[in-house]
Amino acid sequence: MARFMTETEHRAPAVPRAGTAEGRRGGTGENATGPLDGQEEAAALLERTRALVDPELRAAVESLPGAMRSIALYHFGWRQADGTPAAGSAGKAVRPALVLAAAAALGGPAAGAAAVRAAAAVELVHNFTLLHDDVMDRDTTRRHRPTAWTVFGDTGAILAGDALQALALRLLAEDPHPAAVPAAARLTACVVELCAGQHTDTDLERRAPDEVTLDEVLVMAEAKTGALLGCACAIGALYAGAGEEDVAALDGFGRQAGLAFQLIDDVIGIWGDPRRTGKPAGADLVARKKSLPVVAALAAGTPAAAELASLYGKPHVKEAADAAEEITRATQAVERAGGRDWAQAEAADRMARAMQELARAVADPESAGGLLALAEFVTRRSS
Amino acid sequence: MARFMTETEHRAPAVPRAGTAEGRRGGTGENATGPLDGQEEAAALLERTRALVDPELRAAVESLPGAMRSIALYHFGWRQADGTPAAGSAGKAVRPALVLAAAAALGGPAAGAAAVRAAAAVELVHNFTLLHDDVMDRDTTRRHRPTAWTVFGDTGAILAGDALQALALRLLAEDPHPAAVPAAARLTACVVELCAGQHTDTDLERRAPDEVTLDEVLVMAEAKTGALLGCACAIGALYAGAGEEDVAALDGFGRQAGLAFQLIDDVIGIWGDPRRTGKPAGADLVARKKSLPVVAALAAGTPAAAELASLYGKPHVKEAADAAEEITRATQAVERAGGRDWAQAEAADRMARAMQELARAVADPESAGGLLALAEFVTRRSS
Repeated sequence: MARFMTETEHRAPAVPRAGTAEGRRGGTGENATGPLDGQEEAAALLERTRALVDPELRAAVESLPGAMRSIALYHFGWRQADGTPAAGSAGKAVRPALVLAAAAALGGPAAGAAAVRAAAAVELVHNFTLLHDDVMDRDTTRRHRPTAWTVFGDTGAILAGDALQALALRLLAEDPHPAAVPAAARLTACVVELCAGQHTDTDLERRAPDEVTLDEVLVMAEAKTGALLGCACAIGALYAGAGEEDVAALDGFGRQAGLAFQLIDDVIGIWGDPRRTGKPAGADLVARKKSLPVVAALAAGTPAAAELASLYGKPHVKEAADAAEEITRATQAVERAGGRDWAQAEAADRMARAMQELARAVADPESAGGLLALAEFVTRRSS
Repeated sequence: MARFMTETEHRAPAVPRAGTAEGRRGGTGENATGPLDGQEEAAALLERTRALVDPELRAAVESLPGAMRSIALYHFGWRQADGTPAAGSAGKAVRPALVLAAAAALGGPAAGAAAVRAAAAVELVHNFTLLHDDVMDRDTTRRHRPTAWTVFGDTGAILAGDALQALALRLLAEDPHPAAVPAAARLTACVVELCAGQHTDTDLERRAPDEVTLDEVLVMAEAKTGALLGCACAIGALYAGAGEEDVAALDGFGRQAGLAFQLIDDVIGIWGDPRRTGKPAGADLVARKKSLPVVAALAAGTPAAAELASLYGKPHVKEAADAAEEITRATQAVERAGGRDWAQAEAADRMARAMQELARAVADPESAGGLLALAEFVTRRSS
């Protein structure tokens, strides 16, 4: 156990370092100070996951009728908008990788192999929420392509999302593994939490900056991001035949790692390198997004916090020169009000909590290696 | 068997009789020519169903977090928009009644009692589709109240619908009954079919009148309406421990009865009495809806069909006097082109097929009584 905790401390999340919005690399990928083996291990895990889960996922999507199939194939990147085949880039498969890694950590390789269908179910749920979130948020780009609703209309995207949720639960209902039923119970409970989280998110975005507390945003982020990562790990534990306490510990691990991920993602949304994120610098600030570093900064009660509140109270200026200056001012205000430092410290704290949860269920650090690598991967990512 | 078929023929669906759009009673409720005992039996069954299923349904909805709970309670009629309690009018509970009646028909009263949770799950799925359909169709009234999206926005209605689908599958995942898993497999497959049906529906509505075939509309109606009625009956059969063939027969019964219901519903949409339907006379014609009688009329190849096609090619006139005249002309054109006669004959044929399917699984007409009464109820309804 001691060695385990030491190793995890050694692998504490590397969050983007202090710097300005302009031209600075946001993250710590190939130029990280720590060893890269964790990243390499995660990359290998994700690749193996894709190889195992994609056929199951693809077969499920191909089983959909007519337009539902077309829209889902497009969303997953397996088809172009005109129906021609595409190489496919169906996301990084972090959630199914967590299912398989958790199953393997608690039950060995056989448990991992048995959980492939459940891993596909979790990925289907994730993608159902993406399809619907993009409609609600009017987001026009996803994985560097136009979102499904911009191509197939709101109706197509809503119905394809509905169908993917049903398909996810169908995979579990048709899985004879004894863990499939409790996994379905967890996954459906998780969907309810995801919905509540997304609803709170849209509600918070509509409120004035001074009407949003940091606690509310943390609870929302846990529901919207942490819940499904936790559920993925818990389902993996179920497929390993784990008892209730271990399943709960794995859920806690995923939730805390998910919150750490969201904190880093929010830091990247402000300080990320546009060349790596594919989004303009300070995109979240331009959108007046009440991300975690921003709400932490707003709550600081300092002159910088007041300046940020004043900037957030006005719509984003459109003229190029003024816009760049405004982004710089907002970025610096968040930083001076301590938003970035808080987010980085909070991310490290959440990762420490995640490690504690993991250690409750997995005493052997060797077995936990895959989960650690994935947690490190999601919190080290810089785009 | 002979007595059974005789009884069902005697109880053939009574569809609204020929007449004009103005002032004529559209249906055959209390003034029907047939005996009323079937209607009374259905009413009693629906009331018993509500008494059994509502507590399960209500407890499930109450378990939702925050806004999801508020929106769902409003949608089910248990709360006003301002959050104050309401007496509740959560629909007629036809689908849960079919679950319980099918379970009782094949497995006796105990099977019916065991299927209460599954009946609630089916009703949750039905209501999830209503929430989403209203968003997509921009319908502003449901059960004589403003639709959820008009009160809580598209985001609220989409998320509450998502949560209700998850809740439905959660009820089944937490039901220890051995039928719960195959029921979940059927229900999720049904949701996919419902989504495809709704997508086809919106697609057909966008096409020109002469680009829609009667076969397409029948397939769409079976997917959109027949599938869930069939699924409800099939799930009831599963809870009775029925074998595959009987489950399939019950599914067929519900599908055919569902199509009969849709045909009658479409007739009511044109000839229904506004005082009973709560909608203006000829509402479907005003909306240029490609309902079954209309598409049958358009396909007739007669002068009346051409007149109807010409009317449907133009937007509805807004001036009151002209509008009333236009509705009368369209109504008469559908009638003269044989749309009404076809729909009535097709409904009777579908009911006969439903009875044949039922007879395959339930030899004893006494046991089938509840299902017969419900099928009669949905096809005799006049509002």
